[in-house]
Amino acid sequence: MPIETLKWKGGIDGCLELIDQRLLPERNEILSCKTTGQLFEAIQTLAVRGAPAIGVAAAYGVCLGAQNISSNESITEIAERVNETCDYLAKSRPTAVNLFWALDRMRQATAAYCNGHPNASAGDLACFLLEQANAICAEDQQMCRAIGQNGEPLIPNGGTVLTHCNAGALATAGMGTALAPMYVAHQNGKRFRVYVDETRPLLQGARLTAWELVQANIDAVLICDNMAASLMADGKVDAIITGADRIAANGDTANKIGTLALSVCAKHYGIPFYIAAPSSTFDLSIDSGAHIPIEERKADEVANFGKIATAPKGMKVFNPAFDVTPAEHIAAIITEKGVIELPNTGKISRLLRP
Amino acid sequence: MPIETLKWKGGIDGCLELIDQRLLPERNEILSCKTTGQLFEAIQTLAVRGAPAIGVAAAYGVCLGAQNISSNESITEIAERVNETCDYLAKSRPTAVNLFWALDRMRQATAAYCNGHPNASAGDLACFLLEQANAICAEDQQMCRAIGQNGEPLIPNGGTVLTHCNAGALATAGMGTALAPMYVAHQNGKRFRVYVDETRPLLQGARLTAWELVQANIDAVLICDNMAASLMADGKVDAIITGADRIAANGDTANKIGTLALSVCAKHYGIPFYIAAPSSTFDLSIDSGAHIPIEERKADEVANFGKIATAPKGMKVFNPAFDVTPAEHIAAIITEKGVIELPNTGKISRLLRP
Repeated sequence: MPIETLKWKGGIDGCLELIDQRLLPERNEILSCKTTGQLFEAIQTLAVRGAPAIGVAAAYGVCLGAQNISSNESITEIAERVNETCDYLAKSRPTAVNLFWALDRMRQATAAYCNGHPNASAGDLACFLLEQANAICAEDQQMCRAIGQNGEPLIPNGGTVLTHCNAGALATAGMGTALAPMYVAHQNGKRFRVYVDETRPLLQGARLTAWELVQANIDAVLICDNMAASLMADGKVDAIITGADRIAANGDTANKIGTLALSVCAKHYGIPFYIAAPSSTFDLSIDSGAHIPIEERKADEVANFGKIATAPKGMKVFNPAFDVTPAEHIAAIITEKGVIELPNTGKISRLLRP
Repeated sequence: MPIETLKWKGGIDGCLELIDQRLLPERNEILSCKTTGQLFEAIQTLAVRGAPAIGVAAAYGVCLGAQNISSNESITEIAERVNETCDYLAKSRPTAVNLFWALDRMRQATAAYCNGHPNASAGDLACFLLEQANAICAEDQQMCRAIGQNGEPLIPNGGTVLTHCNAGALATAGMGTALAPMYVAHQNGKRFRVYVDETRPLLQGARLTAWELVQANIDAVLICDNMAASLMADGKVDAIITGADRIAANGDTANKIGTLALSVCAKHYGIPFYIAAPSSTFDLSIDSGAHIPIEERKADEVANFGKIATAPKGMKVFNPAFDVTPAEHIAAIITEKGVIELPNTGKISRLLRP
């Protein structure tokens, strides 16, 4: 089984335990968040990261906030206090969509509960909020497992898979997205090797994916991003699976920088290239990848390593965080609702239709 | 003009001045080698690196050795002392072909000189050896300049070029190989931008190529290796030029790991991919790239950065130093003897024929 990235410990007066990802891969330490302030800092400083994991953590953060509501307050005051907690947590990572989604859901659930239970106590609401956070967590775990089961047949027994960045257990409350088919295949007794791209500049592959695969006793080999083509040319890669940050209506997929090069090489060498992502990653308001904005990040991520300069002072740097892989490079998109082979607008719309 | 990587200073009692590449890009300091021992250490510890630069440095190292020969010794003894210096310097980098080539040339020149001048003094031989080393240096500079002139028409005025690793002035006594066409184009007043791959794991692009291009006032932008495909997809790369470590008779080219991926993406996006290398890089005893052995290097180059672990302890790593780009991905090979477009066995053999 993959590691557990986060876990609520105890009842309504419990706390949220997180693997402190700032310390990986050197140390595996649990961070206990007992207050919303501690959780805010954990999200802000990347002790917990990965969109689904942040969403689940924030939902539990609302439960931490509810622990401080006085039993003397009216139901209107209680609801107001919960909303204040949500407003506060929403500022921890200003652009994290899952964070806002989870907090909105907690907010709406609170409003509905308070309307329906005008005489409820702060303790009653705290119980209800913990149930809600547990439900969000369970749904995330179920989504991961479904992606894992849907993608498992694509993992070649006795073969090799290559992955990029970290779309694993550390990024979710469950077994991850891109790594989920590997975890399920491993549980099913398949033998395979995973080549892990280190994923410059922030090395999420080396620091996180390598670590969680080793923890799960899956055979993993670390490479630099620029070595993948050589492995493909030598026939040493049977399939590639990565996650996704945003998928357009036609299947064009934005993911961590470096994904596009893998997909071009995969096409050249006739290797299937898969995307694994929850259906919530699709943005049907965007026709194609041409309309996906690409975040450019700071130069010093590339020009320095920690405090060590790796390039001349003042060196110009281009540092896009993502690239867009065209749908025609993608053999299939693996979602919790099913697998979309050779994705296009029609197939995607049919699978996602409510 | 590009920087001068190495320069003999003074007459027969002079010394070899080197840019200390161990300190780049943070500091640009000159290392004065006054003894063969200092030069040995400079080569061994990569203060000077790049096959052509090492060859030239070693030739001057023989001159440093000649400074210690007593004027009382016979011509046979003098020749023997030179050979001892050559034997010693040959151990500084055990697999550097240019090192052996330069030392053999100094050895043979010494033997011929001593045969022809039985009454020559140690001072006479020292003069002769310095002339020989100067000739090797001048030939290297001339080779670089010829590659630069032959490749210059391929640099698009107002466009962009991408390069990988360091095949520049820092690797030769002259203006480099892959960078030479850029230096000549810059001298000719062309305006263009160079995208510099950082070149994991040892970052020769970030540390060396970026530094020397900035020194020469050429517009240079650093990227991670995995960002090149995204630039190509966006139409931001007009040409790619890299060096070569070994070229087979059919044009298949071994070069720094990551070159193959660039060539695959270049082919996909219809961008010309060029190799620039002296004719001495061809190994006609090898039919094709399939027979070029690929050095695998230590895991900690990938799994650590300096003393900082970037991957879990004991992580398995695959770290090939080179990959092989098939001739059919190469638009042209630029040599000092001319440009071989769409290289194949026949064209290569015709150009290299003595």
